[in-house]
Amino acid sequence: MVQEEIRRRNAGALLRHVHLRGPASRAELAERMGLNRSTIMALTTELHRAGLVHEEPPTDTGRAGRPSLVVRPASDRWYVLAFDVAVDRLVAARVGLGGTILDRREAVRPRAGPDLRRVVAVLARFGRQLHRTAPPGATCVGLGASYCGMIRPGDGMVRYGPDLGWVDQAFGDELGRRLGLGLPVAVGNEAHLGAQAEQQRGAGVGLDNLIYLHGDVGVGGGIIVGGRLLGGDGGYGCELGHMVVNPYDGRPCGCGSYGCLEAEVGERALLDAAGRPAELFGRAAIRSVADDADRGDPVAQEALRRVGDWLGIGVANLINLFNPGMVVFGGMLCDMYPGAAAQVRGRIARNVLPVAREHVRLRTAALGDDATLVGAAELAFTPLLTNPLTPHPSPASAPAPSILHFPSGQEPRKRVCQRP
Amino acid sequence: MVQEEIRRRNAGALLRHVHLRGPASRAELAERMGLNRSTIMALTTELHRAGLVHEEPPTDTGRAGRPSLVVRPASDRWYVLAFDVAVDRLVAARVGLGGTILDRREAVRPRAGPDLRRVVAVLARFGRQLHRTAPPGATCVGLGASYCGMIRPGDGMVRYGPDLGWVDQAFGDELGRRLGLGLPVAVGNEAHLGAQAEQQRGAGVGLDNLIYLHGDVGVGGGIIVGGRLLGGDGGYGCELGHMVVNPYDGRPCGCGSYGCLEAEVGERALLDAAGRPAELFGRAAIRSVADDADRGDPVAQEALRRVGDWLGIGVANLINLFNPGMVVFGGMLCDMYPGAAAQVRGRIARNVLPVAREHVRLRTAALGDDATLVGAAELAFTPLLTNPLTPHPSPASAPAPSILHFPSGQEPRKRVCQRP
Repeated sequence: MVQEEIRRRNAGALLRHVHLRGPASRAELAERMGLNRSTIMALTTELHRAGLVHEEPPTDTGRAGRPSLVVRPASDRWYVLAFDVAVDRLVAARVGLGGTILDRREAVRPRAGPDLRRVVAVLARFGRQLHRTAPPGATCVGLGASYCGMIRPGDGMVRYGPDLGWVDQAFGDELGRRLGLGLPVAVGNEAHLGAQAEQQRGAGVGLDNLIYLHGDVGVGGGIIVGGRLLGGDGGYGCELGHMVVNPYDGRPCGCGSYGCLEAEVGERALLDAAGRPAELFGRAAIRSVADDADRGDPVAQEALRRVGDWLGIGVANLINLFNPGMVVFGGMLCDMYPGAAAQVRGRIARNVLPVAREHVRLRTAALGDDATLVGAAELAFTPLLTNPLTPHPSPASAPAPSILHFPSGQEPRKRVCQRP
Repeated sequence: MVQEEIRRRNAGALLRHVHLRGPASRAELAERMGLNRSTIMALTTELHRAGLVHEEPPTDTGRAGRPSLVVRPASDRWYVLAFDVAVDRLVAARVGLGGTILDRREAVRPRAGPDLRRVVAVLARFGRQLHRTAPPGATCVGLGASYCGMIRPGDGMVRYGPDLGWVDQAFGDELGRRLGLGLPVAVGNEAHLGAQAEQQRGAGVGLDNLIYLHGDVGVGGGIIVGGRLLGGDGGYGCELGHMVVNPYDGRPCGCGSYGCLEAEVGERALLDAAGRPAELFGRAAIRSVADDADRGDPVAQEALRRVGDWLGIGVANLINLFNPGMVVFGGMLCDMYPGAAAQVRGRIARNVLPVAREHVRLRTAALGDDATLVGAAELAFTPLLTNPLTPHPSPASAPAPSILHFPSGQEPRKRVCQRP
């Protein structure tokens, strides 16, 4: 039983390795995973038999002797559907094992409150299209969604979705039902998923302590502590956007308070500081301020500096609290940060204790606006990567499996569907 | 090898259980640890043979049948020496297995910079006295110290001790050398140790997510995330005292910045707000403000409210970030908090998102001013509790062992001494 558990974990670790880091030779895998080559061979043989990896000779080793086979994830055979409900857009994508976005659909999302039914209708239509147009023999192994609000861990319930005005809406269940693929939808908060995606595939690969700030209307946060997402008692931690940074004449915040970080550095704060009229909003408006600043416009430059100073106070506080290796700016902060970086760095120099500021790096999201979508895809891949060798028919030997069981405690429900 | 590892872990878990929770019958241990009674019997027999626990019939079970033996830690045989360098006092204590403070020495510490040599001289003298006066057959298994500054993990180096003006002082090494017991001194930051002590033996027993604020001249923090102390990349996280809460007209902080939480709620902030002259300081002065407020003095009440509002902003920010089950106020905040609680609760009501404030409890430290000392003792017990069944002579069979080896990777050095 212990041996079986070790084998299961090693298989998961190996598949996760090639899924996240890309193709690698058996010899490289042995070295990186600290396992001997016969163990690696046994694992890759099993994963190959299950259709999860391809093994092939390297194109050119430049060395004499028998080359070590290269193991690559079978991206053509296994995929997930990932969804992203962001403030300005609705996205759905088919993402292959290995993390490649194979196909996608995208719609502009109106700001003024589409209800649950309309949002789910758009995403479900996209999802069914993506599933229908997948190549023959490809198998869907999971569904994941990113949502711009507070999500109850476990069941995909939106506890609080400020920009859509959603409270306690069963988004995950409803999307799963409308997709009709017989799979549950795993849902996460967009900033949590963005943080994990940047740590797995983005700017902070391999870092144990990382803070991700996701800007849109407000500012969300995902904080990795000791390699794991900070959850807190109910899974509602990481709310860095509601850190009060301006207690005197703070701007009103959507949460009902004043002077929260997101009220001082969110979209409206920057646009107001730059003198943009109230009817302008969204990414194009933010980019136009950043572009004007680049061109030397003093009003736009001053707006970025002003907002950047609040951002700097928040980031300095976070570095003192978390002593992270990296702070990543995502969402619209990707556009805002470059023009505000001097202020942020200035605040860090003044407010962060020297031992904590020595090594911290500041970066914009390497995955750009897809960080949240990529995080949703990773969420959907979790059961397969946890239990890759669960007994199931491989696509090769049984061309049309319709349901695969993932017996792990994490995922009690049936969760694999086959393209019809 | 796997079996041996499991046995070692179970023995450590059992000893830790009676060490932290007190005497328990074999039957209770079986139930609480989820192990069968024969396994428990084998473990307690081994621990008994090693002299680490006593087993005895219960005084009165009130039940028919053969009673389950009660297992209690051998507090009379195994102890640690714990030290506390706090802003106003130097403390040393002999603490028995099971956590009882068996004996202690304490000295007032002058505020104006005693140097490393003088602090270590006092503590080493206390430590040697405590060791000499221990009963025959009692064995010292570890040395631990709490220090009111930033400590480099691993070697007890004080990176930054603001109140004593220490920078990069080898406190742990020096104290170990002067004690001359042949044991290294494990050193931790006082707020980190206070947090762990309150979570192990104090107000927050068993909580996975807990924030401890330790007030003295400044405000230190210890934050438990998912059951573990938040460290960050270098072990310098948790610096909640340097969260900027007052960016406009903030008071100057010892770190060189302005408006940090500790500048707004530390000792001097309260005393200034209460109109106390600059020559007054320390716990007695803080308590006199709290006492005056209790007696209805409006100046003292207003001072506590003013400082309480800044404290509330800081605490609300922390709850939004960490979604903890409890916030514990320690050090001088034990005295200050009751008169400031209404402000703190008011800020939480206004600034914390509802899902995170639903379940959080606010408490003063159950261990009072000994929270940091207790944390230092637990640090000193760690090697024994990690490897209790390391082959070593028991005090019974070999009355004067001088060195015991703890072969765990965590503790490479020799670390047990016997009373001479």
